[in-house]
Amino acid sequence: MNGARALLATLAANDVNVCFANPGTSEMHFVAALDDSPEMRGVLCLFEGVATGAADGFARVSGRPAATLLHLGPGLANGWANLHNARRAHVPLVNIVGDHATYHAAYDAPLQSNIESLAAPLEGWYRRSTASDQLARDTADAVAASYGPPGRVATLVVPADVSWNAVDEPRSWPRAERSARAHVDDEELSLSVRVLRSRRTALLLGGSLSREHLALAHRVARATSSRVVMETFPTIVDRGAGVAEPERLNYLSEFALDQLKDVETVILIGAREPVGFFAYPNVASRLVPDPAEIIDLVAPGGDVGTALEALVDALSAPSLDAERGDVPVAPTGDLTTQSFAAAVAATLPEGVIVADESNTSGVHLAGAMRFASPHRWMTLTGGAIGYGLPVALGAAVASQGRVLALESDGSMMYTLQALWTMAREGLDVTVVGLSNRSYAILNFELSRVGASATGTQSARMLDIDDPTLDLAALASAQGVPSVRATNAEELVSALERSYATPGPMFIEAVLPKRFG
Amino acid sequence: MNGARALLATLAANDVNVCFANPGTSEMHFVAALDDSPEMRGVLCLFEGVATGAADGFARVSGRPAATLLHLGPGLANGWANLHNARRAHVPLVNIVGDHATYHAAYDAPLQSNIESLAAPLEGWYRRSTASDQLARDTADAVAASYGPPGRVATLVVPADVSWNAVDEPRSWPRAERSARAHVDDEELSLSVRVLRSRRTALLLGGSLSREHLALAHRVARATSSRVVMETFPTIVDRGAGVAEPERLNYLSEFALDQLKDVETVILIGAREPVGFFAYPNVASRLVPDPAEIIDLVAPGGDVGTALEALVDALSAPSLDAERGDVPVAPTGDLTTQSFAAAVAATLPEGVIVADESNTSGVHLAGAMRFASPHRWMTLTGGAIGYGLPVALGAAVASQGRVLALESDGSMMYTLQALWTMAREGLDVTVVGLSNRSYAILNFELSRVGASATGTQSARMLDIDDPTLDLAALASAQGVPSVRATNAEELVSALERSYATPGPMFIEAVLPKRFG
Repeated sequence: MNGARALLATLAANDVNVCFANPGTSEMHFVAALDDSPEMRGVLCLFEGVATGAADGFARVSGRPAATLLHLGPGLANGWANLHNARRAHVPLVNIVGDHATYHAAYDAPLQSNIESLAAPLEGWYRRSTASDQLARDTADAVAASYGPPGRVATLVVPADVSWNAVDEPRSWPRAERSARAHVDDEELSLSVRVLRSRRTALLLGGSLSREHLALAHRVARATSSRVVMETFPTIVDRGAGVAEPERLNYLSEFALDQLKDVETVILIGAREPVGFFAYPNVASRLVPDPAEIIDLVAPGGDVGTALEALVDALSAPSLDAERGDVPVAPTGDLTTQSFAAAVAATLPEGVIVADESNTSGVHLAGAMRFASPHRWMTLTGGAIGYGLPVALGAAVASQGRVLALESDGSMMYTLQALWTMAREGLDVTVVGLSNRSYAILNFELSRVGASATGTQSARMLDIDDPTLDLAALASAQGVPSVRATNAEELVSALERSYATPGPMFIEAVLPKRFG
Repeated sequence: MNGARALLATLAANDVNVCFANPGTSEMHFVAALDDSPEMRGVLCLFEGVATGAADGFARVSGRPAATLLHLGPGLANGWANLHNARRAHVPLVNIVGDHATYHAAYDAPLQSNIESLAAPLEGWYRRSTASDQLARDTADAVAASYGPPGRVATLVVPADVSWNAVDEPRSWPRAERSARAHVDDEELSLSVRVLRSRRTALLLGGSLSREHLALAHRVARATSSRVVMETFPTIVDRGAGVAEPERLNYLSEFALDQLKDVETVILIGAREPVGFFAYPNVASRLVPDPAEIIDLVAPGGDVGTALEALVDALSAPSLDAERGDVPVAPTGDLTTQSFAAAVAATLPEGVIVADESNTSGVHLAGAMRFASPHRWMTLTGGAIGYGLPVALGAAVASQGRVLALESDGSMMYTLQALWTMAREGLDVTVVGLSNRSYAILNFELSRVGASATGTQSARMLDIDDPTLDLAALASAQGVPSVRATNAEELVSALERSYATPGPMFIEAVLPKRFG
């Protein structure tokens, strides 16, 4: 067998059995080896940012890494933005980048570039494999590294000759030795219990949060009059009826500062210290008040559940009944950001995984979804636009259930090629494409940063309505059945139909134009 | 005024007056400043790879840099692949990347990453501006650096506060001090003349090649029984009736090795020593025979014209009449790679600029176009797929004439968002989208690298026909009028109509399916 086959066998032996691929010439032996690797599912993507975002979504849902397959430096670069989001989501991801044959590197051929320098800002694990008989070991090491904790992007560069040269089949494939998660520190725990009892405290939760985590956190908070706050952009979190709901830290620094202004202590549980998403003139970057103490109880990717259980035990915090509220009602009339949110909430089946890149169009979503059917909710962890459709794709590959992507028009245009792979793989993804024909968030940010723009040139940089994008046609041209909803009834009906129909469906929701 | 306004004014003072932009929050002051900068044309792109490729195309046609405007590390990453192509094209490009405010960098906010590490593999010029009152100087330095020679990507990182802080308006804006091109070395020149007279010599031309350059090279060759060879992927080259035609170095290493096997000396004139695009088992990486001498007469981006004139003078090489041949005739019947090429050649108006990313579908193009109307031809210099539509967009902004993009379906899907900007700007671009429903080049490369793949998994990695992409619909959904041609007559008629109609037009050319 050759190196490529050894690579695939090692991935499979370590339960990495999906590869989101956009291969080129230097990856052809990997592609050929798929034929001998029925345990590996190859999923073709037409753009690398789709492949990397899909691997992120797969990991958020399954907790396990998927592999990517990218083509040299340009392939890594095209996939980089969604790897950045995966890095900020602290998910495991095995990022395989093919490269020129080892001996060809001396010649600086047209496609050559410094791949290591491109990968370095992902701040994960990096190795260039140099010998076919080491490739299985390198692969197992990449899988192990991807798990962290915390989960990270492990980039394995595979020169073409390392793929194509022969290797002996070993008796067994090397295993990825996973590191244990750090124990919760007893001293930090005691300190946390003391401050919870005595000071105005916020538990700041982040990362992947189950309903059990949220229930435990609420027991702690109720027993101590403290608050449960969630980071603005968690990796994946349970929400909906029967699930305890944390406050979400506001995206807007001004509001977040107000939200935290009375806090004396913040206990970080799977979250980092919160800072402004951007800087704004005369607004602080740190969101926690200067005099407040910060206790770093659980690092991102750490054992949130054990820490929360320990707090509950130490405080003898009693159980709580789930908060009840009104089941959402299907809206009628005009399609607005309100009725959009109500339609999504009213129709949502139980167990749906939501990839939310609705941005400004989703402003009413969190409120509307509070007592919707229980669901899982994913967010734009790293701020690199174009995450929603790829992450929904990967989530659908990882899950047997339905995925709902809420995708604004501006964001959709970064990685719209994900729709084709949804169609090809017959994935149960409902995509709502939100058309407001504007970079609405930038209109909003323009004034926040203190810029004043009243002319036509600046207006044209924020308006995407000339020409109007036909979102539904962009989906159907890629094989995804599509429909356009121009009022609330049509959106409700389209959502219901999509949930009842296997395979992907695209719903263009035509909202009032947002501008200024 | 603020830093952003000073940046724009300095660009304009140095004849950089187009900016291909995909801005975010950290670039809002730049966007606002456009309203006070009528001398700067802002061109909005929906994806960063479109913006960078457009700046490449603008420079190839005009010889001048355009600016980009990108949003932090993820924006640079999304634009990186086409910057890599621009790097290999040796064109000037001013790459502006907004970043967090200087004081915000300490907090590692979600969008933060190591931008310098991302930019380093572009091997151009890099600077992070740190003070508003230095930004004009930094900008002029970036423009100067972009010109080289050779032309290069000059990346200027502009933190948000450097944009928004106030600066005094100077009496004049700093000027970009451009370095002179190196003189042609007399000794190398004499050596070249000697070997041209005495040994089997090939002139290897590269970069931007005008009809005058080609005519000079042919005079030298005719006078000395040497050969004129052009690198496989030049930046932009004149072709067609009345233009002397060099041999093109074959893309396939096996054929290129055969092409050069009898050569005793290679004189590099604006080209690097040719090497295999990829490595293949048992095929050499170097394409020039080992015993052959290589004379590096003009480096890429150097003064090709002066060197060729000097050779002509030294050799007293007589003028030549242009080679004549049959004017291409419009084809009829089935649409094939042959009739596609004939249709393009037969209908081509004079002066069209061609962005060629037809890949395997374009196999007959060079031959068919030999005596077509004179045109300029651009190629995929760096091998990073997805260059064609963006480069065509930028070429159209730089030119008053018609641009023709020949774009294969697989490649088109990397940067299809360029179509929207063509529609928005009303650019005279004819796009032929070549549908063969396959990564045909990879089917071909698979066997060349010695891989054998006979199973369904590998076949599915190379076949993009499930589902079939509706290329015409992808264009019309973005505002570009589109038509589908299923035979040669329809393609001829659609091409003629597009040339007679202002604005962009998309023609889907449905070729036989290529597979295996």
